[in-house]
Amino acid sequence: MGQTLTEKILDDHLVEGELEPGEEIGIEIDQVLTQDTTGTMVWLQFEALELDEIQTELAAQYCDHQTYQFDFKNTDDHRFLRSAAGTYGAHFSRPGNGICHNVHKENFAAPGKTLLGSDSHTPTPGGLGELAIGAGGLDISVAMGGGAYYVEMPEVVNIRLEGELPEWATAKDVILHLLRELSVKGGVGKVFEYTGPGADSLTVPERTTITNMGTELGATSSIFGTDEKTKDYLARQDREDEYVELSPDEDAEYADQITVDLSDLEPLIAKPSMPDNVVPVSEVAGESVDQVIVGSCTNGGYEDILPAAKMLEDREINKKTEMIVAPGSKQASEILARQGWTAEMMAAGVNFSEATCGACIGIGHVPASDSVSLRTFNRNFEGRSGIEDDSVYLCSPEVAAAAALKGEIVDPRDLADELGDMEAPGIELPDQYDGSKADLISPDEAVDDELIKGPNIGNAPIGEPLGAGIHGEALLKMEDNITTDHIIPATSDILKFRSNIEKLSEFTLSRVDDTFAQRAMDSDGGVLVAGENYGQGSSREHAAMCPQFLGIDAVLAQSFARIHKANLFNFGILPLAIDEETYEKIEQGDDIEVVTDVSEAVDAGETEFTVRVNDDWEATATLNASERERRILSAGGKLRLTKEQYADEGRGGATPADD
Amino acid sequence: MGQTLTEKILDDHLVEGELEPGEEIGIEIDQVLTQDTTGTMVWLQFEALELDEIQTELAAQYCDHQTYQFDFKNTDDHRFLRSAAGTYGAHFSRPGNGICHNVHKENFAAPGKTLLGSDSHTPTPGGLGELAIGAGGLDISVAMGGGAYYVEMPEVVNIRLEGELPEWATAKDVILHLLRELSVKGGVGKVFEYTGPGADSLTVPERTTITNMGTELGATSSIFGTDEKTKDYLARQDREDEYVELSPDEDAEYADQITVDLSDLEPLIAKPSMPDNVVPVSEVAGESVDQVIVGSCTNGGYEDILPAAKMLEDREINKKTEMIVAPGSKQASEILARQGWTAEMMAAGVNFSEATCGACIGIGHVPASDSVSLRTFNRNFEGRSGIEDDSVYLCSPEVAAAAALKGEIVDPRDLADELGDMEAPGIELPDQYDGSKADLISPDEAVDDELIKGPNIGNAPIGEPLGAGIHGEALLKMEDNITTDHIIPATSDILKFRSNIEKLSEFTLSRVDDTFAQRAMDSDGGVLVAGENYGQGSSREHAAMCPQFLGIDAVLAQSFARIHKANLFNFGILPLAIDEETYEKIEQGDDIEVVTDVSEAVDAGETEFTVRVNDDWEATATLNASERERRILSAGGKLRLTKEQYADEGRGGATPADD
Repeated sequence: MGQTLTEKILDDHLVEGELEPGEEIGIEIDQVLTQDTTGTMVWLQFEALELDEIQTELAAQYCDHQTYQFDFKNTDDHRFLRSAAGTYGAHFSRPGNGICHNVHKENFAAPGKTLLGSDSHTPTPGGLGELAIGAGGLDISVAMGGGAYYVEMPEVVNIRLEGELPEWATAKDVILHLLRELSVKGGVGKVFEYTGPGADSLTVPERTTITNMGTELGATSSIFGTDEKTKDYLARQDREDEYVELSPDEDAEYADQITVDLSDLEPLIAKPSMPDNVVPVSEVAGESVDQVIVGSCTNGGYEDILPAAKMLEDREINKKTEMIVAPGSKQASEILARQGWTAEMMAAGVNFSEATCGACIGIGHVPASDSVSLRTFNRNFEGRSGIEDDSVYLCSPEVAAAAALKGEIVDPRDLADELGDMEAPGIELPDQYDGSKADLISPDEAVDDELIKGPNIGNAPIGEPLGAGIHGEALLKMEDNITTDHIIPATSDILKFRSNIEKLSEFTLSRVDDTFAQRAMDSDGGVLVAGENYGQGSSREHAAMCPQFLGIDAVLAQSFARIHKANLFNFGILPLAIDEETYEKIEQGDDIEVVTDVSEAVDAGETEFTVRVNDDWEATATLNASERERRILSAGGKLRLTKEQYADEGRGGATPADD
Repeated sequence: MGQTLTEKILDDHLVEGELEPGEEIGIEIDQVLTQDTTGTMVWLQFEALELDEIQTELAAQYCDHQTYQFDFKNTDDHRFLRSAAGTYGAHFSRPGNGICHNVHKENFAAPGKTLLGSDSHTPTPGGLGELAIGAGGLDISVAMGGGAYYVEMPEVVNIRLEGELPEWATAKDVILHLLRELSVKGGVGKVFEYTGPGADSLTVPERTTITNMGTELGATSSIFGTDEKTKDYLARQDREDEYVELSPDEDAEYADQITVDLSDLEPLIAKPSMPDNVVPVSEVAGESVDQVIVGSCTNGGYEDILPAAKMLEDREINKKTEMIVAPGSKQASEILARQGWTAEMMAAGVNFSEATCGACIGIGHVPASDSVSLRTFNRNFEGRSGIEDDSVYLCSPEVAAAAALKGEIVDPRDLADELGDMEAPGIELPDQYDGSKADLISPDEAVDDELIKGPNIGNAPIGEPLGAGIHGEALLKMEDNITTDHIIPATSDILKFRSNIEKLSEFTLSRVDDTFAQRAMDSDGGVLVAGENYGQGSSREHAAMCPQFLGIDAVLAQSFARIHKANLFNFGILPLAIDEETYEKIEQGDDIEVVTDVSEAVDAGETEFTVRVNDDWEATATLNASERERRILSAGGKLRLTKEQYADEGRGGATPADD
């Protein structure tokens, strides 16, 4: 039986397990990337592993989220990241050099390689035939140490593209169309593999727009095969030698196939406030627009901004509309500037920004109250722009530029008719991507050879190996559906302490009970009690790391959200499931003792644990954990386990399977 | 007796008083400017005056401080300002179009005119022969209504410049030299008038660097005469018809004369943390530099950035140094981009920013902890960069670029020797300032004809006319030297409520007693008690406006800081001086009654007021106020008085003296 492209790359990198959907596999990681809001903890954990240098072929540290550096903590984080990259052998991309996905695509993404990144849009280089997956920070640290990355083998779904895009329809409309068809949950547990003549017709930058925003489908990754267009793109980036021809076998078997005829597409737009809330632009035409932003990792490339620039040439944007262009990379900025397009856009009324994630994560250019913002970004979740009750639409640069010119949403085809002299800009690559690399500091050019920690940068806490007994107070009893936002809020006043677990821990569960953190610190250990679906929401590890820091030994909940449960294992906290009767009976402040010998039971694969409450009554709690998870728990968390493994094995955990 | 240039312009605009130093004069204002952090209150107060349109020849509203818009309140402020400009007939400069002083210089500054601006660097256009003065927001509102501006007639001091600047010395070094000689208090109560062959040798952009930073000398204003260079500059800005020849009479008498030989100057630098802490660059050479920023209203012009760009051409900045270029205006950005310099700077490793005040006021690019930042700005007060214990140096763009290249402070002459092929860039104007005006919306192009207030934008409170009695509790007893920062903090979490007096008032005196605001709101009136020097520090009007909003009727203090006392009058709060014995005897919570008929006594010019405490003992308090101040107080504040005057007089208060 033939293999899909995904299977081929996984097979090449497999170190554990089998390629059966749903089975856990361990794969070798060739490249890792991190950015500034997740990167500090990645390196603090790497420091805790006590390795001298990274073990992957390549690691790259980007500074893209907090480039405006509103607080010295941001600037200190950037300096620390530079020092970590220098100390351990990673490439360092200075703040202002661009968004991790764009800069990585330009400089490092390579067909057939595996990439693990601590950012959800890591799959972007799938457009170049790299298998790229987003993961938590600790996974990145472990991979940099040479450890395998463990993931459930996804289903591979074929998206077959037929035909060619008509004028004014773009790659953004391809992914918006898929979001409309499949919804934001349509890709969970799947890799989307794009094939067919329509895929062949797309340039690499168009392909990466699609793979980037595949994240909004919930996909594990998205990938295209490689071809002359890939080779051509790499040649223009002066990296032709990294080209590898890759395609699925002709008789590859896919879990599912979806066909899209590109020639049927038209300009689409995602209405507030979900990326799958997609309609034709014409359906919302006439809506007054206050702000337009072109940029982000989805549509912030040279090839994305150029069409907007062409549309704005010799024109002026509407007086009531603000338009900001934030290129995805310095390379894009520099080429646009060199070709005169930056001046043209400024002349049209564009506010030209640094290369940054910025507004896409609510940092800067927050929309006015009761206003409409059109953005070429990938997400429009309510409040993400920085204001509650926002009205953010997602669209292509062409639709964005048309709205800026008219001051209202308009199908660019209609605007072209109206103006008479505006042609469809189409897609155009520069002859050569000849931007400078001054802001990309290679390991050879490293400035630092030791870590520079500002006063807000702490250490990665390491858990203690599981002991025989767990005995402490039920420090907090919570309802159903507690989110990771409840556990560790991500508002900017708290976000800036992400490098400082001691300080960050003070905010643990403060949205539920603002006395909790202090009470936990004052007590010697303790447990949390919760209802159903504990830990839903974002994947942030800090939601397990901070309770670990505060000495929480176990969480007793009716059920756990999947990712948070994995994080509890990773940070050495015992997740015990209890039934509703037990939940109802336990009260905050009760004395909780796990009578079972915990360490022995975890190692022995036991599932039932006896919990004694107030030395008065007993209940049975359940541990549902794989063998690997039990090893992690027993060791006191993944960081300690990995550290011990690396110490045992010498340097670098997993043995490379191939190359 | 001949007149100085300053006297000529004042004479032309005089509506009250005589040109005797120290005497209060009233002058007609031709132009006003406001920016986004002070402008909202200017327009709210203008709204309260109930006029249909501005009465000055020109008003311009700029958005430059909060252009990153990191809170919807900033964006709402910008929209409100656009709507106010449109409604009342002012020019509106969109966020991203540049710093008020730069954009005003480029588009509106005109020889012989008077300009009043709600920003301390308003004197910038003095380099073009405009007499420009910074003032409080309410003064701007009143001037826009056609009212005179009242100021103490300053002393006019002649700065005679001889010789010409040698290579690598710049206009920045002229003003740094003066700061070294005269200190930051050297200009208080003075206008500096620049003459001599050295003045003639400087271009307009160089002159405006000097007049801009004259503010750091404490000067009321700084001014140059006009000549062929002025005419040439205006011609390049396509405004040659606005040229007027202006110079002091040959026999003009100055209060003082200071001579500077430009040929003696060398590259200078202001060390942390005061602009007058000036030494030759060579004296601090070798200091490692983490961050370099070129920009601001002092050195953010095309002519300022170009020398840095030339020095960076075909070179790369040091890997350990971050360099940000934030042009002072879109015009500068656009011309630099069109000429290819933007691409060159990006290639060298520069992070090219929006045109914004930004980092100069601690908004963005906050230095890392324990780091050195070199900036071409005008102020380096401790903490102003956004981090306490900062190390900010002030210098020319040439010195800044040299440091970015070398990674440490270096005299650019030494760096030129070292590199061998770097020439002194000198000063160069573009043939034509041909940037687009797309972001400058004239009254004719106005988008709005009514005010748009977001939820954070309130109304300007208007005081009540003074009644017969003042009777209330001593709500707070304070020590000596209470600053306006104590009264209304300016940290960013509070600053964003500047347009919302009701909300802002909740923070009144919170640094002294965080129960005060609530107690004041709960009580029906009340008084404040303080020691010496009450209200020192910044000129912010909110420090009087918020107590007024909370119902404070009087402040009993041993002494008052000058500007804050004027603000208390302006907002209808009675400032009564008490002696030390009375201060010691009054306790917080005491019942305070001003027994004297307040309204009658203020109108009658009485200076002594009897204060009865706890219906038990009495003391005498003193009111020291001019007739004009008494009129303001009696009316319930300047806003109400002006409103009444304008209503009486029809529209527009002062009758223009001339033109």
